[in-house]
This record gives sequence, structure tokens and C-alpha cells, in this order.
Amino acid sequence: MKPALIASNGLAAIREHHPMVHHITNSVVMNFTANVTLCMGAAPVMAPCIDESPEMVQFAGALLLNIGTLDHTLIDSMIAAGKKANELAIPVVLDPVGAGATSLRTNSANRIISEVDISIVRGNPGEILALAGKHGKVRGVDSIDTIYDCIEIVSSLALETGWVIAVTGSTDIVTDGTRMVGINNGHPIMSRVTGTGCAATTAVACYAAAVEDCFEATTGALISFGIAGECAAEKCKGPGTFVPQLLDALADLDEEIIGRRARTEVLL
Amino acid sequence: MKPALIASNGLAAIREHHPMVHHITNSVVMNFTANVTLCMGAAPVMAPCIDESPEMVQFAGALLLNIGTLDHTLIDSMIAAGKKANELAIPVVLDPVGAGATSLRTNSANRIISEVDISIVRGNPGEILALAGKHGKVRGVDSIDTIYDCIEIVSSLALETGWVIAVTGSTDIVTDGTRMVGINNGHPIMSRVTGTGCAATTAVACYAAAVEDCFEATTGALISFGIAGECAAEKCKGPGTFVPQLLDALADLDEEIIGRRARTEVLL
Amino acid sequence: MKPALIASNGLAAIREHHPMVHHITNSVVMNFTANVTLCMGAAPVMAPCIDESPEMVQFAGALLLNIGTLDHTLIDSMIAAGKKANELAIPVVLDPVGAGATSLRTNSANRIISEVDISIVRGNPGEILALAGKHGKVRGVDSIDTIYDCIEIVSSLALETGWVIAVTGSTDIVTDGTRMVGINNGHPIMSRVTGTGCAATTAVACYAAAVEDCFEATTGALISFGIAGECAAEKCKGPGTFVPQLLDALADLDEEIIGRRARTEVLL
Repeated sequence: MKPALIASNGLAAIREHHPMVHHITNSVVMNFTANVTLCMGAAPVMAPCIDESPEMVQFAGALLLNIGTLDHTLIDSMIAAGKKANELAIPVVLDPVGAGATSLRTNSANRIISEVDISIVRGNPGEILALAGKHGKVRGVDSIDTIYDCIEIVSSLALETGWVIAVTGSTDIVTDGTRMVGINNGHPIMSRVTGTGCAATTAVACYAAAVEDCFEATTGALISFGIAGECAAEKCKGPGTFVPQLLDALADLDEEIIGRRARTEVLL
Repeated sequence: MKPALIASNGLAAIREHHPMVHHITNSVVMNFTANVTLCMGAAPVMAPCIDESPEMVQFAGALLLNIGTLDHTLIDSMIAAGKKANELAIPVVLDPVGAGATSLRTNSANRIISEVDISIVRGNPGEILALAGKHGKVRGVDSIDTIYDCIEIVSSLALETGWVIAVTGSTDIVTDGTRMVGINNGHPIMSRVTGTGCAATTAVACYAAAVEDCFEATTGALISFGIAGECAAEKCKGPGTFVPQLLDALADLDEEIIGRRARTEVLL
Repeated sequence: MKPALIASNGLAAIREHHPMVHHITNSVVMNFTANVTLCMGAAPVMAPCIDESPEMVQFAGALLLNIGTLDHTLIDSMIAAGKKANELAIPVVLDPVGAGATSLRTNSANRIISEVDISIVRGNPGEILALAGKHGKVRGVDSIDTIYDCIEIVSSLALETGWVIAVTGSTDIVTDGTRMVGINNGHPIMSRVTGTGCAATTAVACYAAAVEDCFEATTGALISFGIAGECAAEKCKGPGTFVPQLLDALADLDEEIIGRRARTEVLL
């Protein structure tokens, strides 16, 4: 199936079924990503406490784990919820924010991936390299590696782990080790707004809650999210007015816009 | 007094006295509801830690408890602050977000209502039914019950408990068991923005801090909040641009707008 | 150097070096202040957990401590990160939100200033007076003192402690005890938006990460932030639309705008 069609079919499925997406995520982006979830057509729930996070999973079409502002309690809760999701065959999407920057983040990400079966990981190059045990040049939650530098490592990592991996930047790469697509949607202003990476992961989790094939879900989500970013960039006057426009653009996405704007290349 | 007049008189009282409204609330909506409080004309304070939450209550005109992202520490803090509010005769407003969805939420809501004298509860039908010990068809923090299905249960619950109860949806119902009003303000786009229910509870708490009669406070608040939602819906282009417009509309509310737009029916 | 030049040179330095600013801050303003940081040209990181907060400091050009929604765990983390910053000679900026309102806040602020060498403190008059051990008439996180009432106390406090102190209100005062400047930029609508004080502190931390002299950094930051507030006030329709406009205005600031709009007076 053509990537643009994957994106628009997936969006239609989200809007038909309104799946719930359970986020255990960082405090910086909770409001923003809850609104992204709603604008995609899915229903957000955020239940961080371990005494309910696994129970809440049963209502969810996907579980998103984001380690942006972590502590041990939250990681324990993520693992408990992740194990429940595995039991129920609900896809788990990991955003390893800042992996590689501090030991706590790297170790927590490693603990999650060793105890929970992850379906999809989305991160910037440095974060993904950190998961691969490579030394990414990570500075805090940023990264200075370019995506093309790490294509081979990412392919091998996907094959070895069974994850679908999305490495995002000015070009996004999605691979499951056997398939790989490059996505050239999006806009530079997105890097000037906090949480756009986290929000891209939310888009992926919404798709994963409605689309069986995780590679297709991830590809479709990043095309849609990137296109919404472009549409918003055309209407805003700066990074502040970009945010409400991005949410409107997500809500306004349709087959025609996606078909016209999707810019992808099959790399594998 | 006519509901529209209750709404505009209450708003005038808030803007004259700028009461402080102490929120112990969920992490998703903190920023949004703090801004709602300011736009209503009141002053927000959010002091979640038990070592100061009761002390902070003394400055407040109302205490709002919202269990949207709860843990045991936070519930303990809510109860300590609630008891202090009861001592000082400060109204306590409860938003039982997701009660009925998980045991933790249902049990925490029940613990709060058994240890604290609550003045007002606002929730969707499923949450209110869960407090009544009825099996609401609750899915996460959503609900699929309609409001008219639960009018009798809600009336009895109000009489039995002494609470003013607001069940919100496309029509809002407010009752103290002897009086009941239906409010037909608001706009469907509000359900596509995270935290509009929580924000409605904030509006109620602002009114409760300035208006003696809790039934009138709740009625007036939901009329005002619904009208602001309508005004914002006319100016926005989608759920993203709706949020800043809603805050502007709250700040712009006046007697004329309220008088012209209030749509209520006395049900009891 | 003229204050306007200090402001525009500082901004140029931030945009050239993109320093990371590590925030340990309150949950209400995390998203807003992360976006303020990005719009200034710096890079935000928020790592509240004590197991990583000191480690994250090494990547930072400044450390911001804000006690708006504190608990003991968070204060411990602030102190650990602050000590690490002291070791590495990274400036520490304190926002003592609500000091004077509750014992927990006053005591926590006092614990921080006794265990960490603070470079800059920004607060409203009541908060600064509370740090000076004076009885400010503090009501929650607000204050009813005017700035000119406390100039002498603030000067002495700055001399005694070695801090640069910024007392903000309709006029901002910045002093290190030997120098003092008054800044008349800003707009009344800023007091109707949650977290504008916290965001001003973020602006100060961004400048402190790029400008050696802390008095100049603080002065430059508050000029820039106030001017952005004025520009945004001219474009918005109310406190809701003000927020995205403020972020755009921060991103749009340049030497010309700053030179034209800066309104300062040398007081000492």
C-alpha cells in the first residue's frame, strides 16, 4: 500500500473507533499530548499511579511510555502497565526521551525494554543509539547526530529486537528491519516548540491503537503528524501561535490533504 | 432569581472580591485551569503537598479537589486540606475524574466523600453514578450514559448527601435534591479539548468562593462557562484555537452576554 | 553599557550559543516555561528526579529552581542539583514562589539559600521580603506590597547575600546592592496569565546562561521579557490569546525592537 494511503486509512480507522490511548508520560507535555490525542480522533487517558496504571490498560488500544520526567515510581508503573499490555496483546509504544543523557534515563529505558515487549520506539538519533548501546552524542534531551548516520545500526536493532523503530528529525526514518521508509514531511518550526517529539509519539500510539501492522501505523502517523505541522506552519506567525494551529491542523487532516502532501521514499 | 441573573451577579462578585481558589488537581490541566481561574476574576493557588495544603486553605474562598491523576499521597493531601476547609467553613468542590473506571479512582473518591464534607460535586453521568454506588458504564474517564437517564438517582443522591450535584454533558443538570435546573449552553467542540470538564469544575469553585448558596453558585458557573464556550466556538477554527479563545471569552463575559445567551429550564 | 544594549547583546549571545537551561520547577508552568526557553533561543531540560538532576546540570548553562509546587523530594533534588551547579560554577537562579505564604515554602526557600550559593533571585515584593526575614503581607502566591516600599531592604539583602535580586511588578527593580536599575516595560495583562512571573525567571536563567555578569543578565532578561509582553498585548484580544502571542513576540525580539521600546532608569 502507498504510504499516503496507509496514513489516510489509519486516520479513518482512528476516527471510526476512537480508541483510548493510555499515556504514562512526562509532566511537561501532558496537556499538549492529551489534546493531540483528541485531535487525532482518539481518547487520551493518563493514569500514572501503579495502583491503577495496569487496570487502566484494559480500556486502551495502545499504551504509550515516555520517560521525559521520570522517577523510580513512574518507571515501576510503566513496567507494570507494560506487562499488562503484553498480556492483553495491546501495543506498547516507547519514547525514550533523553536516553543517553543521564544514567537514570539510559538505565530506565533499558529496564523497560528488558521487562516489557515493546512494539514501537520513537526517538531522535541519539536516543535510539543509546538504546542500541552505542555512544550517541547526546546533550540532554537533544542530539547532534544526523539520521542517515545511523540507518544501519537502526536496521540491525530493529531486526534484533523485533521493534518498529522511528528515528525522527528533518527526515523521519521508519523501519522494522525488513522494510524502511523515509518521510520528508514536517517543518523546522516544530523543533522550536517543546514536546513536538513527544506529540509525534502520541500520533504513533493513536495509529497503533487502530492499525494492526505496527510498521504501517508508525509510517502513517509520522506522515500525518508531519503534514499537520506543515499546514500549521503556513498559518502561524511563530512558535507560540504554531501550537493551536497544529492541533487544528491535526483535527482538519483528511485524505485529500494527506494525498497531496505526503512526501516519502521507500528505502528498503 | 432568574438563572441568568444568578450567573451575572456571581461573576460580578468574583470580580469584586478576587477570591483565591485552592486547587489540588491533576497534572494534565493545571495550567489550563489556573488560567481559567484568572480569567473568571479569581486567583488560583495549587499547593499539592500535604505539608502545606491545609495551611494554604486558610487563604482560599473555595477548595477544589480533582482526582484526575491521583496517587495515595495526593489523596491524603486532599483529605487533610478538605478537613481544614470544613473547619473553616470553606466550600469544597469535588471533581471525581474517572470514578468508576478503576478501583483506585472509585475507592479514592469514596474515601474523600466519607472523610470530607463536600459542598458540590461535578462530573459526567458515569462518574456521578459511580459515587452513587451504581454501575455506570464508564470507560476510562469517559462515560456513555446520557444525563436524563440518571436524573432520579442524582436527585436522591443529592438529598441523601446534602451535596449540590452537577452532571454535565450536552445538557448540564444541577440539583440539590429540592431544586433542579437544566442548562443548555456550551458547544460540542468542548468535548474535543482536554480538561474542559475540569475547567467547568474550576468555574464552579470560583463561583462557590463568591456566592453563598452552592446551588446558585454551581448553576451560575455552568451557565457562564457554557456561554464562554459558545462564544469561543464562534471565533475558533478548531479545538486548538478554541482554548485561547475560551480563556478570552471567559475574561470578556458580562451581564449583557449572559442575559442574551443563557438557556436554562427549571426542572424541579 | 546602556540597559537596552545589555538586553540585545544578551539575546544575541543566547541565540548564538543555545545554552541549555535546566529547570527544576512547578508542574503548573512546565510547558509554558519550556516554550519560553525555546523562544528565547535556549534549550530547556526538566529533570526533577534527584537521581539525575545533578548529573543533568553538567550540560546546563544555568540552573533554575522554582518552588511553585514543591514537596520534600523535589527540594532535596533542587539542593543536590544546586550544589553540583556551584561545583561547576554554573549560575543558579531561584524563584521563591509563595515564600511567606506557608511555612513549607518559607522553610524550603530558606533551606535552599542556606545550602546552595544562589546567583540570582526573582520574586514579587512579598516573596523577597520573606527571604529577608521580613513579614511581607503575602496572600498565597500573591503579594500586596508595592515595589518601592522595599527598595532599601532589597539593597541591603543583595549586599549581605551577594545575590542579584529582581523584584518584579508594574516596575521591575534589579540590584546587586551597588547597582540598581528600574524597568518600566511590561503590560498589566501579564498579571492575568498564570506563570508570567515564573516565565520571567526563565528569561533571566536563559540570559544568565549566556551573559557573565548576573546583574546585566537579569536586567537584560527583564527588559526583553517585558517588551515581548508589550508586543503581545498589542496583538492579543485577551489573556488567552496573549500566551501564544507572547511566545511569538519572544521569538521575534531583536535589537531594533529592544532599542526602541526599552524603558529603564538607573536608580543606583
